[in-house]
Amino acid sequence: MTDALGAHQPAARERVDLICHDADVVVVCDDAGTALRGTSVLITGGMIVGVVPAAEVSARLAAGTLIAGEVRSMRRRLIMPGFVNSHTHLPMTLLRGVAEDLDLQGFLTRVWAAEAELMGPAGTRIGARLGALEAVRAGTTTALDMYFHPIAAHEGAVAVGLRHVIGPVFFDFPGPDNLTWAERITLAHEWPAAVAATGGAAVPHALMPHAPFTNGPARLAELAELAGATGAMIHTHASENDAENDQTQRDFGTSPVRMLAGCGVLDRRCVIAHGVRLDDVDRSLLAAADAAVAHCPGSNMKLASGALHWPRWRESGIRLTLGTDGCASSNDLDMFTAMRQAASLARLTTADPAAVSAVDIVRAATREGAHALGLGHLIGMVAAGMAADLIVLDRDAPHLTPLRDPYTALVWSAGRGDVVDVLVDGRWAVRDRVASRVDEQEVLSAARSHVGQPDIASVRP
Amino acid sequence: MTDALGAHQPAARERVDLICHDADVVVVCDDAGTALRGTSVLITGGMIVGVVPAAEVSARLAAGTLIAGEVRSMRRRLIMPGFVNSHTHLPMTLLRGVAEDLDLQGFLTRVWAAEAELMGPAGTRIGARLGALEAVRAGTTTALDMYFHPIAAHEGAVAVGLRHVIGPVFFDFPGPDNLTWAERITLAHEWPAAVAATGGAAVPHALMPHAPFTNGPARLAELAELAGATGAMIHTHASENDAENDQTQRDFGTSPVRMLAGCGVLDRRCVIAHGVRLDDVDRSLLAAADAAVAHCPGSNMKLASGALHWPRWRESGIRLTLGTDGCASSNDLDMFTAMRQAASLARLTTADPAAVSAVDIVRAATREGAHALGLGHLIGMVAAGMAADLIVLDRDAPHLTPLRDPYTALVWSAGRGDVVDVLVDGRWAVRDRVASRVDEQEVLSAARSHVGQPDIASVRP
Repeated sequence: MTDALGAHQPAARERVDLICHDADVVVVCDDAGTALRGTSVLITGGMIVGVVPAAEVSARLAAGTLIAGEVRSMRRRLIMPGFVNSHTHLPMTLLRGVAEDLDLQGFLTRVWAAEAELMGPAGTRIGARLGALEAVRAGTTTALDMYFHPIAAHEGAVAVGLRHVIGPVFFDFPGPDNLTWAERITLAHEWPAAVAATGGAAVPHALMPHAPFTNGPARLAELAELAGATGAMIHTHASENDAENDQTQRDFGTSPVRMLAGCGVLDRRCVIAHGVRLDDVDRSLLAAADAAVAHCPGSNMKLASGALHWPRWRESGIRLTLGTDGCASSNDLDMFTAMRQAASLARLTTADPAAVSAVDIVRAATREGAHALGLGHLIGMVAAGMAADLIVLDRDAPHLTPLRDPYTALVWSAGRGDVVDVLVDGRWAVRDRVASRVDEQEVLSAARSHVGQPDIASVRP
Repeated sequence: MTDALGAHQPAARERVDLICHDADVVVVCDDAGTALRGTSVLITGGMIVGVVPAAEVSARLAAGTLIAGEVRSMRRRLIMPGFVNSHTHLPMTLLRGVAEDLDLQGFLTRVWAAEAELMGPAGTRIGARLGALEAVRAGTTTALDMYFHPIAAHEGAVAVGLRHVIGPVFFDFPGPDNLTWAERITLAHEWPAAVAATGGAAVPHALMPHAPFTNGPARLAELAELAGATGAMIHTHASENDAENDQTQRDFGTSPVRMLAGCGVLDRRCVIAHGVRLDDVDRSLLAAADAAVAHCPGSNMKLASGALHWPRWRESGIRLTLGTDGCASSNDLDMFTAMRQAASLARLTTADPAAVSAVDIVRAATREGAHALGLGHLIGMVAAGMAADLIVLDRDAPHLTPLRDPYTALVWSAGRGDVVDVLVDGRWAVRDRVASRVDEQEVLSAARSHVGQPDIASVRP
């Protein structure tokens, strides 16, 4: 019915599920950085079937040649693809604020203690639901998540409507989930069926070794082989800070990325979280493999891990995506904040105010994240043939006036408070700033009950 | 009727204008970093007259020994002092997005061209009104502003209800406002009367030399003397980046701060904007004078000016406050963002995740800003005897759950979208997320009309 962008070939009489009608601006997130004015998005069966001038849609609606289950006015609205958060730990939303103003050792001691107390399967489900609620309310439609008890996490996130990518976590010692290596491998084999049973939006199969230094080369090679056999992607932490690189060098005589490459992990679709401390060889290996880096500027700054050099990573050919990390280390799941942090950090690190364009940043938070997950055919762009994973912003906020360039406004002025509606897979996840599929107060209450009442722990003096 | 914090001595029958009743949390912003639960704030004649346990207020209301013009429920709310934005250019909100992804020279060329086109007295008033609307909606109750046509700016900001500190701008060449030096001096003499005539909340008299390098020592000395004679404070840019320091060194053989000290400017109450590049002597001079630095981390990162070293500045004894700078260089007026940027930048710059506490950051954005303006007796803390400059946040946002430590939540998780109500001088400026004193749509429309319709300038490709 349509070509890739805009030109819609009308049938004699077309019926669609939903028309997001007459948006002030549609931020397409294609390679060219297109923004369209006065545009309607036609949706059927969860898919975008047309991105059409609003005047044409109005005329066809009036003539009865276009019929819609719902026509929702998008006057004074900006439509864009939902954010793809390429690295987070949603269940850890329950641990928000549990370890603050501490050095890394103090931080980890507190977090581990809190995990032991709170993060069994029930806590994981409650935390994932809370995190997914926060994420979708803030405009995220897809998240690459990593946590223990992944099926509990998946159930929690899917209930809210998030497109939720997670998989079994691996490390070469007993973890807080108390699984043996063999049990983790069994879980990996059962994983696609378990995910399908939850009925969430389509996601890739994924295996999640925690990090090279916590798995070692033999285990990594085993997982790379398993990923090859089952078509899974791999998500892992790598080169978050100097201490991690030092430990990997000490224990294995190489860098985390070289280790991933040597074990065949980079032969699979791979997203590494952080990638702050990468040398030229590391970067070449990642670029050659089309592996993506999930840049988490908020977490990297808050934990003082270091500053990724955006232009140098980009020039190396690395696919740069954006993540928030988990709420234990970065305290919220706001991809608007992540965009602004990434853009700010790139300028500060390079001393170049032209280090990265707003279009590149918005695309990192949407389209590049989609490609990193192998979902480039499905999400991260507003175009016919893509899934309807869309977010809708109120463009009448004072801080979006005057708007001028929409990509610039999204990076430097917009925020989660501007998100009015969220569609995932063509279904409402948020409507008029309220979650559509869960009772928000119930989600918040469950979280507060689980961490203990009152949830305000520290009242000075 | 009350002592400094909390203990309220009831009269037989007390009548107050307003009770903000039974807040979940009151973030006091005193030196100790106190937060109070289940607390009511009593307000009369624009002043806080009691900060009282809610149970006591409920009992007195029931007994008829306390009568209020309005009792507003603050259940599930967090009350804190309104933010003091210690450096901005509110009228430049009209220039948001006009110069992006450019180096400094390209940026200035674009901004100057836009100013010539848009920023006469009418544009200044329209821009200040827009900026003030954005600022109060985001929780700022006081702003230290600097711009041409200051009376037009003041009229615009006061109309929205902001406590707005501005004064005549000085530089030693004809500016876009086309005033001679003598005319600027005349304006300075007339300034307190002109401000009083606008009927806004109480503010200090202020003189605003643009920067040391644009005034020179003779002019600075003249202004220091004038400030001494008229009781004015002084606000100026100083040491924003290396280029500014280099130019000052070249032209005047010294640093910006040494120049301010040598000309007597630091003998007055003084707030310098930026203060990124200060050596030991500069810092000692500022500390000895109790001059404040308005740290603008967003602008400093966006323009790649550099990174202020928070712990070193603090250890030097400098009073650190927070500003957003103007929207031409930092694109919004969000003090929540400024807090998070400052905390993140401090950690990154020092490689120390304990470089600055959340309490210190919140106080910089409130109490320290108040002290910097000489308004420490009046604003920046929730306590009896202070003006009722308060903001009210919805603590039921998903991203504020669980809340745990309130100061941490304000720095690392909260945002402008959480601001529900704003009081300035005991009068509502925002209520239920809508400005109380202006028609928001009219303010936005005036801004769009002035910059030209449509306000979306750049639609690619």
